[in-house]
Amino acid sequence: MSHSSGQSGATSPEAYYQRVMQLCSQAAPTATAHIPVDVFACGRVLAADVRATWPVPPHANSAMDGFLVHRADLPAAGAGPRSLAVCGDVPAGSAPQLPAPGQAVRIMTGAPIPEFPAQLADTPDLLVVPVEDTDVPAGPGPLPSEVTIKRAPRRSNIRARGENLQPGDVLATSGSVVDPGTVAALLSAGVSTIAVRPNLRVAIISSGAELLPLHPGTPTPQTLPAGKIPDSNGPMLAALVRAAGYSQLSTHHSIDDPRALRGLFDKLSADHDVILTTGGISAGAFDVVRHVLSTSEQSWFGHCAQKPGAPQGHGLWKDTPVLCLPGNPVAAFVSFHLYLAPALALLSGAQAAPTLWARPQLSAQAASDFPAAPPGKLAVVPVSVDYSGARPQAVAYSSGGIGSHFVASLAGTTALAAYATAVSAGDPLDIYPF
Amino acid sequence: MSHSSGQSGATSPEAYYQRVMQLCSQAAPTATAHIPVDVFACGRVLAADVRATWPVPPHANSAMDGFLVHRADLPAAGAGPRSLAVCGDVPAGSAPQLPAPGQAVRIMTGAPIPEFPAQLADTPDLLVVPVEDTDVPAGPGPLPSEVTIKRAPRRSNIRARGENLQPGDVLATSGSVVDPGTVAALLSAGVSTIAVRPNLRVAIISSGAELLPLHPGTPTPQTLPAGKIPDSNGPMLAALVRAAGYSQLSTHHSIDDPRALRGLFDKLSADHDVILTTGGISAGAFDVVRHVLSTSEQSWFGHCAQKPGAPQGHGLWKDTPVLCLPGNPVAAFVSFHLYLAPALALLSGAQAAPTLWARPQLSAQAASDFPAAPPGKLAVVPVSVDYSGARPQAVAYSSGGIGSHFVASLAGTTALAAYATAVSAGDPLDIYPF
Repeated sequence: MSHSSGQSGATSPEAYYQRVMQLCSQAAPTATAHIPVDVFACGRVLAADVRATWPVPPHANSAMDGFLVHRADLPAAGAGPRSLAVCGDVPAGSAPQLPAPGQAVRIMTGAPIPEFPAQLADTPDLLVVPVEDTDVPAGPGPLPSEVTIKRAPRRSNIRARGENLQPGDVLATSGSVVDPGTVAALLSAGVSTIAVRPNLRVAIISSGAELLPLHPGTPTPQTLPAGKIPDSNGPMLAALVRAAGYSQLSTHHSIDDPRALRGLFDKLSADHDVILTTGGISAGAFDVVRHVLSTSEQSWFGHCAQKPGAPQGHGLWKDTPVLCLPGNPVAAFVSFHLYLAPALALLSGAQAAPTLWARPQLSAQAASDFPAAPPGKLAVVPVSVDYSGARPQAVAYSSGGIGSHFVASLAGTTALAAYATAVSAGDPLDIYPF
Repeated sequence: MSHSSGQSGATSPEAYYQRVMQLCSQAAPTATAHIPVDVFACGRVLAADVRATWPVPPHANSAMDGFLVHRADLPAAGAGPRSLAVCGDVPAGSAPQLPAPGQAVRIMTGAPIPEFPAQLADTPDLLVVPVEDTDVPAGPGPLPSEVTIKRAPRRSNIRARGENLQPGDVLATSGSVVDPGTVAALLSAGVSTIAVRPNLRVAIISSGAELLPLHPGTPTPQTLPAGKIPDSNGPMLAALVRAAGYSQLSTHHSIDDPRALRGLFDKLSADHDVILTTGGISAGAFDVVRHVLSTSEQSWFGHCAQKPGAPQGHGLWKDTPVLCLPGNPVAAFVSFHLYLAPALALLSGAQAAPTLWARPQLSAQAASDFPAAPPGKLAVVPVSVDYSGARPQAVAYSSGGIGSHFVASLAGTTALAAYATAVSAGDPLDIYPF
């Protein structure tokens, strides 16, 4: 079923976002892979809740460098310091030692404490006197034969076994993305293998007979052939996809030929999870992407009430979502952040696919005038942001004006500014860091 | 020259940050490598300003799908529509065509326009009538023999050659980090090779005899040997370093033996640009990292007025910076974001090394009580953030309390909350997304 909306009935950005999410939610992954928990697990999407194997911490241990003693052996309130014989030494990594009544055991931060009595935390018969509250100097030194306790500690300074987590507790939930904190959490609880969703396979097509693919690393000619422009959209989109965490991608170029494009869609849909295109979706006589996809399942092409990036569209090609970006580079850049970044998250199996409107929003100060979009349209402008002052300063990507073809000004932008009416220099401006 | 500060004279986090930056600024890179401009260039640091080879856009081109005509051939104000013969067709990618007076050329968005007269933008003899303002239907179709212009456009709809950038203009500056927008900017201006700083080579040492390195991907035992804990700090730090964009890293484990650690420092300093350590820098009898490094050049060990993460330190080992994190995992995690992330940026040659205080700051709402740090100390708490409501909700990393050993609760945290006095549930809380 195909639908398209004209310029007059422009779709709101939020409605278009919902439409793209709806398409992609049908294609969320169900397959599972098992991978080791290491640095390369970062960015992968969990296919199931992960539960702890071990308690965290795995044994009761000392929170301080100091001396393990019985509570009964502390100096009484109001009384002077108390000296105890030191009968043992527990560096971190050693087996726990229980001091005899009237004696002390030297102990280091993290070193184990005997699991005795049962509820250590509730009835702390044992406690650790920090070295700073004794007559023993802090730092490396031989084991003293005696320690004088100058002050009784106010806490036990003992961390109970499983205080943070018990075996079987959920560490991380299905659909969450593994991050460095997750790696630490999993390993600390004895989980060294996880079930994840397969890596998303992304195909990128830059369309347009005017595009001249460059060969990175080889010198470019001094001038371009007549009518040609370098293909910057394809590499830009590949870089955006990779920076968003999807490294399994292939890039392609299509001239404005419907039959060739159909063939490319057939080929790519066979071994990719999503196809992204730039260009060819507007009102032109040779806008082949729109022309070819309009006959596909669930296709939609139309205009969003935004500038730049009004032309938008998508469809399914043999069950593979095809998400189409406009060809103007700034429009493509903006639309990637608005629609494709959350769509790729959903397609990768991630639980939360943040929209622009649910991302961190900052109130910045406009460093220059930001012109209004046409009436009823949302202006969406890439900005670089200077955070060094009292208030973030948002600098429009191009000082020469805001044009959807000003691709050479995209370097170093780190946020989108979004606004409905013109914003003057010095006025507040809502920005959304990527 | 070695210096150390005691607990009583704790250093402010900002002063410690400056101290680390000062150390690292001496070790900023001077070497240069040349790499192709492609997706893998992202994250690299430019070693020189980059200037445009081509103008952007490379030729005057149409901003619309429509018809190129002479201004003199537009319908006069108040007069009816005007019909012109269509004498040519310029798809994008073709050579430009100049319509004869009284005639029109069909032209697509991005297609070239003859560079005539010289200052097109100033004296627009030529202009493009959008297809929507003619009697020709938008979209694919054969070339019509005639076009009727219904409305004269208000703009030329012509983008001038070099409107965005001229050859020789600076595209991106030395010390900036290549991002997807930079890739697009460079390629659009004909730059396919760039001079960058070498990849930063990072060595990571987790120290402590209690640490049991796990073997990712193999089953873990049901219980741990007495006194042992899994090494989660090493993999966590590796994941943090990699997520920050530095993929050339090696990980190591050190037991609490000064001679072995000196040997490891000797070995690693020979072929790494920076060494990061966790653990062994506090007041313990076996705190070997501090002990060994205290004799090194420019070493400093002491306490920062923060919780967690009070013990901090660093030194130079044979001119290689050694940056030391505390061993408590939450303290290490927090300290990475406060000090090591900006330090690594500086060591990689990046121009701007943002501090916590110069990063995006959001006013969130505390989802629960955040307890105060001890008097005079800054509390720094990892939080997960829910952005879906009217105001971001900051959830402390552990609902069971805030303990520097609660490593199993770090999963999914995306920001640091920093505050001087206790914050109650519902109150505003400043957060800093990583």
